[in-house]
Amino acid sequence: MLRFSTAGESHGESLIALVSGMPAGVPVDQTFINRELWRRQQGYGRGGRMRIETDTAHILSGVRHGKTIGSPIAMEIANRDWKNWTDILPVETGDPSKHKAVASPRPGHADLAGALKYDFPDARYVLERASARESTARVAAGAIAKSLLLELGIDVASHVIRVGHAELQRDVTWEEIAALRAKEEVLLGCVDEEAEARMKAEVDQVLRTGDTVGGVFEVVVHGAPAGIGTCANWDERLDGILAQAVMSLQAVKAVEIGRGVTAAISFGSEVHDAIGYAEKAENGAHTRFTREHNNAGGVEGGISNGEDVVVRGHIKPISTLRRPLQSVRFDTRETTKAAYERSDVCVVPAAGVAAEAMVALAFARQLMEKFGGDSLRELKRNYDGYVEQIRAY
Amino acid sequence: MLRFSTAGESHGESLIALVSGMPAGVPVDQTFINRELWRRQQGYGRGGRMRIETDTAHILSGVRHGKTIGSPIAMEIANRDWKNWTDILPVETGDPSKHKAVASPRPGHADLAGALKYDFPDARYVLERASARESTARVAAGAIAKSLLLELGIDVASHVIRVGHAELQRDVTWEEIAALRAKEEVLLGCVDEEAEARMKAEVDQVLRTGDTVGGVFEVVVHGAPAGIGTCANWDERLDGILAQAVMSLQAVKAVEIGRGVTAAISFGSEVHDAIGYAEKAENGAHTRFTREHNNAGGVEGGISNGEDVVVRGHIKPISTLRRPLQSVRFDTRETTKAAYERSDVCVVPAAGVAAEAMVALAFARQLMEKFGGDSLRELKRNYDGYVEQIRAY
Amino acid sequence: MLRFSTAGESHGESLIALVSGMPAGVPVDQTFINRELWRRQQGYGRGGRMRIETDTAHILSGVRHGKTIGSPIAMEIANRDWKNWTDILPVETGDPSKHKAVASPRPGHADLAGALKYDFPDARYVLERASARESTARVAAGAIAKSLLLELGIDVASHVIRVGHAELQRDVTWEEIAALRAKEEVLLGCVDEEAEARMKAEVDQVLRTGDTVGGVFEVVVHGAPAGIGTCANWDERLDGILAQAVMSLQAVKAVEIGRGVTAAISFGSEVHDAIGYAEKAENGAHTRFTREHNNAGGVEGGISNGEDVVVRGHIKPISTLRRPLQSVRFDTRETTKAAYERSDVCVVPAAGVAAEAMVALAFARQLMEKFGGDSLRELKRNYDGYVEQIRAY
Amino acid sequence: MLRFSTAGESHGESLIALVSGMPAGVPVDQTFINRELWRRQQGYGRGGRMRIETDTAHILSGVRHGKTIGSPIAMEIANRDWKNWTDILPVETGDPSKHKAVASPRPGHADLAGALKYDFPDARYVLERASARESTARVAAGAIAKSLLLELGIDVASHVIRVGHAELQRDVTWEEIAALRAKEEVLLGCVDEEAEARMKAEVDQVLRTGDTVGGVFEVVVHGAPAGIGTCANWDERLDGILAQAVMSLQAVKAVEIGRGVTAAISFGSEVHDAIGYAEKAENGAHTRFTREHNNAGGVEGGISNGEDVVVRGHIKPISTLRRPLQSVRFDTRETTKAAYERSDVCVVPAAGVAAEAMVALAFARQLMEKFGGDSLRELKRNYDGYVEQIRAY
Repeated sequence: MLRFSTAGESHGESLIALVSGMPAGVPVDQTFINRELWRRQQGYGRGGRMRIETDTAHILSGVRHGKTIGSPIAMEIANRDWKNWTDILPVETGDPSKHKAVASPRPGHADLAGALKYDFPDARYVLERASARESTARVAAGAIAKSLLLELGIDVASHVIRVGHAELQRDVTWEEIAALRAKEEVLLGCVDEEAEARMKAEVDQVLRTGDTVGGVFEVVVHGAPAGIGTCANWDERLDGILAQAVMSLQAVKAVEIGRGVTAAISFGSEVHDAIGYAEKAENGAHTRFTREHNNAGGVEGGISNGEDVVVRGHIKPISTLRRPLQSVRFDTRETTKAAYERSDVCVVPAAGVAAEAMVALAFARQLMEKFGGDSLRELKRNYDGYVEQIRAY
Repeated sequence: MLRFSTAGESHGESLIALVSGMPAGVPVDQTFINRELWRRQQGYGRGGRMRIETDTAHILSGVRHGKTIGSPIAMEIANRDWKNWTDILPVETGDPSKHKAVASPRPGHADLAGALKYDFPDARYVLERASARESTARVAAGAIAKSLLLELGIDVASHVIRVGHAELQRDVTWEEIAALRAKEEVLLGCVDEEAEARMKAEVDQVLRTGDTVGGVFEVVVHGAPAGIGTCANWDERLDGILAQAVMSLQAVKAVEIGRGVTAAISFGSEVHDAIGYAEKAENGAHTRFTREHNNAGGVEGGISNGEDVVVRGHIKPISTLRRPLQSVRFDTRETTKAAYERSDVCVVPAAGVAAEAMVALAFARQLMEKFGGDSLRELKRNYDGYVEQIRAY
Repeated sequence: MLRFSTAGESHGESLIALVSGMPAGVPVDQTFINRELWRRQQGYGRGGRMRIETDTAHILSGVRHGKTIGSPIAMEIANRDWKNWTDILPVETGDPSKHKAVASPRPGHADLAGALKYDFPDARYVLERASARESTARVAAGAIAKSLLLELGIDVASHVIRVGHAELQRDVTWEEIAALRAKEEVLLGCVDEEAEARMKAEVDQVLRTGDTVGGVFEVVVHGAPAGIGTCANWDERLDGILAQAVMSLQAVKAVEIGRGVTAAISFGSEVHDAIGYAEKAENGAHTRFTREHNNAGGVEGGISNGEDVVVRGHIKPISTLRRPLQSVRFDTRETTKAAYERSDVCVVPAAGVAAEAMVALAFARQLMEKFGGDSLRELKRNYDGYVEQIRAY
Repeated sequence: MLRFSTAGESHGESLIALVSGMPAGVPVDQTFINRELWRRQQGYGRGGRMRIETDTAHILSGVRHGKTIGSPIAMEIANRDWKNWTDILPVETGDPSKHKAVASPRPGHADLAGALKYDFPDARYVLERASARESTARVAAGAIAKSLLLELGIDVASHVIRVGHAELQRDVTWEEIAALRAKEEVLLGCVDEEAEARMKAEVDQVLRTGDTVGGVFEVVVHGAPAGIGTCANWDERLDGILAQAVMSLQAVKAVEIGRGVTAAISFGSEVHDAIGYAEKAENGAHTRFTREHNNAGGVEGGISNGEDVVVRGHIKPISTLRRPLQSVRFDTRETTKAAYERSDVCVVPAAGVAAEAMVALAFARQLMEKFGGDSLRELKRNYDGYVEQIRAY
């Protein structure tokens, strides 16, 4: 079974990403992983930390001679700032006077809930793990999953469709979305120049006012056949699995499959994707069945239907504001302003990159569940056999 | 560990709901379970099947002398129409000429994706399991989870906030939502009479036009303490777990925690819930920390924060239209109209009831994970100890 | 993922077996399932209950027209004695005076540990679930797994190699073991007449003395290829998975793979199975590699190696003795004799049948993990491709 | 949920151990972890590698200021020989001419099964993961679990009861077993001097003959209350969980709970542990119920019964012999002698240490399942409440 987990604190020595269940023989390119990590660090509205650090993944196990070998893949992503935290956050008891307590819980963060849950006198240990820094390890893990999917011709990409009040207002093609990844400068991850300019204006406004802004990203899985996920059990449905994967990302507060939010305010005749049948499978399609549009986002009844799988994540504005919110001091319980550290004001494109990783991991897991295979050769043989089967259907 | 699963086909002999991991000694009232099943069958815009059937759960195991005994709880919900299907869907080979094939896949259903996946010549077997009929078993299982939560003073209820274009436009209290359950006639599950009338008008319109309509429900967990779920691992975050639970329901296409969709189009200063501190915990609150509002929907950093946990589900319009969509015949691959059987045109309140069950099950599982306990007495002792701890924080 | 679970109390209305994750299109023969249930009820030394009851599985879901349809399979096995227990063990509160308390905990049973754990005043509810009656549902579930394996030419059978002090002392062939299943009268499940006679003498002795006797059974998986299970993760190793599956059976206190117990008292040169290479794969072998013997029991490094997979279970003597052990009264805490109800005195062959079910379920799960496949056609294609691959190795 | 996993190859850069689900506030002493790693490296009959390496665990996350903080604990154990393998086993493509193929599969190892499964031309990648070197990471993880258990007064230790033909022939006390850990020189981990001398003679013999030898270790969990594990579900029974944990260790081929193997050849009256009742709980007992002996190994019906939990592992002789077995060349398929590298000839005490880790991890997981708790304070409160409850039973 494809599984992954992460470890590591925001200001600890390093993050660990662990992926197991990959078939043997899948080429793994460290440059590709590091490029993904770089993409996660980009975007207009990021704070200072992103500028001083360049994350790289160091593979400790599971890849030899450039390929997976069937054993668990462990990657370490060093924290380049660790030297400044060794006295503050040592593994050993250390000098308590150097501990750096968090003065007050920040609304919107795990701070208060975590301090209560774990019985901590302040939120330091909570925020160390709850921080979006953790998504770095997910992106590294996701790059492994993408390496697998790409061998089968399945690609995962994201773009930004809203920043605050500024929304992309036209349809886009897969090619436009995929092309974004080649850009050497990332503004707001939108395929449309005009819309991206409006998005940038939103960010400029919050930079001025000391506020923050959220938005909506869209992740697309392109090239996958019908039949991933199942309606047989509630916890094996692809839509639910994708929802958990994306909702589990820091700051994501809503997830939709396809045009889910719009569907709820529409009539059935406007929503469902009428079915046709082609002379033969075209444009890389795996079946001869065709659809008028893809409002369902490629998932019907919890099963991929052969169209692009589309997942949207709605993220709230960053919780750390330069113009801080009201909170309460941990020590005296008096009212105060929530703590402020130099922070991002907009992370929508980066969240999209992290969501690509989660979608790739979730999708790859369900795909492996369907096709099995301990070597890439075996997986491909199984996959090709199925594709041929449904193409002939 | 609290686990649950279901079995059964829409037109099979019966559905089975299986819940394991309940502590011993929890009172289980069959009247309560059946009332929940009744609630799932109500609402304006339901089809004929709802009128002829009244679902009841028959407990086969796990409850003795009115209480749980720590062993798995199995419930059977008979299909009152089974006698008309014994020849069509027998367990045995039967008479193939009596098989009732589905002529064409219905857009929006699992029909096409499922037939391809499982290599079926038509979609009969697929729709039998993908049908929302399955949620009946979830509701029975959810009633067990609710029975547990209620022993700790935690209650779960839902209401409808949108049907198609008609939206509830005011804030509501927990008491208003909770009161809905006592109603002997369910219209559209909205707490506001005027809004419900507008919702009814939406349904009336689709009844006239042969169309269908979706909407948005909201599930609220009331009375739970801070500290359920954790930021420690992606798959243990409460928000992700709730998202999967609700998204896995038939017809749900988007899930939000609190005001997630609105948050994405707002500034940070408008969204986050400022923190205060009271002289003492009031109104049943488990801590002295207070919040200005609850846009976060009671979850921060993947952990419940002590406010009401609020989950919204956006459901698409029913996929079976009286004025059917275009599809393709399974036998000839010629274009046709999708099959039509007498069906519901609006199921938003019922979906809310099913979502209550899923939220109750998911929440109870995470709660048991935190508090442990093999008997109700042990669970309560653990729970009370923690509540006292955070009240004194 | 292939999963299974059971529900039901020993004297409750019925047992439920639930199997999910089976591919569609696998023929399921109810006669075969019932024959397996019958086999579990046989053997010399069984108590009266076995004689009055004949278990049959009633399929509620997941099988239509004689084949699996990809959805969960639920089976109900009625308790023919339920009518005598409806007042004693009702689901509802009932009449407390009719409750039938267990006077004292029986050494060797879950009675005492369970009463403490679940905070019960006596052990009634504990023994209802801990009873080996539960293995009936496992046997039904196992018959489903066997139906799958048989489609791939993989067969699972068991025989008895020890009853108390009487041991089988010669090597046996797969054919001898497999042939046992055809017998219409089951004595002690031993392939050797002379040894079986000695085993019978052991049982006769305990029948005379009011004692009980255990023994050792051996389960063999025949016809499976190398490559099931993996050394990649501790919880994915086939040996560990088989060990849990068999140890989880009532009364099993030791599990060995192959000649595990003997290996521990031997030198390496006597134990390991030397490797050879044949001109071509013969006798149904999946590879050209051959072994001198099979002390490893077909598993090396947590992976099946292509030889027969051999798992032995050591079962303790039945804990309920006609000449009862010392115990303590639940009510007064005074010393007493442990409760006695008419019971079996030897269950080794039946335990072997139950262990076949557990091994089949565990093995099928790992097999599906490797080969995937949502239809039998797809599974077979994947399986055949792999077999061809390793045959050409 | 307490979970753990490992990563790393035998000759790779490092091993990773990952433990998640620990409550916050548990003291973690790195000296203790390293002492456990040292214990795994000791014993008469170990090869040269043990002498040149001293394993130490470097904590990367999850522990701060000397205590757990509720987030995943990652530990890295460096391979001190990595510098000699960087060209042979690089992560990158490297120079294929420096690859060090395994000439022939070694009987008893995963070599052949793994090469077939993963479609490798030789067994290099297989043995890198299948090697018992991996158990180093388990021992590090186990030390974390032990740190938790010790806070509740629960201790886990092991001793050796057989090496080849030499067996310990007397009963031993918990104190004798526990005392073994303090020894600065480990011979064969036996509490009895005379028996240990016989065991040493066994090792001396195989050292002379170029052979290897296995044996039996026993792990004891001391001080745990009744009620861990449950009979409710097959996969939640403590015996099955322990069986998987220990059988999943390299070289273990049989697992027994208590006197499981002996029980199978005994009469019921000789086996079961008669129950008594004391004036008050004594000697640290958690209940007033007493037992005549502990043949059940502290588990009845899948539940701990308050006695010491006793698990035995039978390990086969090391598969790598100086006087090698017959095998087949990977390249030519000609018969040859299996490859030999300097290796251990006896690892029974070390296997016992690794098994302690597995038992501690498995037991701690089930304990957390029962007691919950996110902080040590909460866990202890829950635990103490239960202990008081059963003491008053």
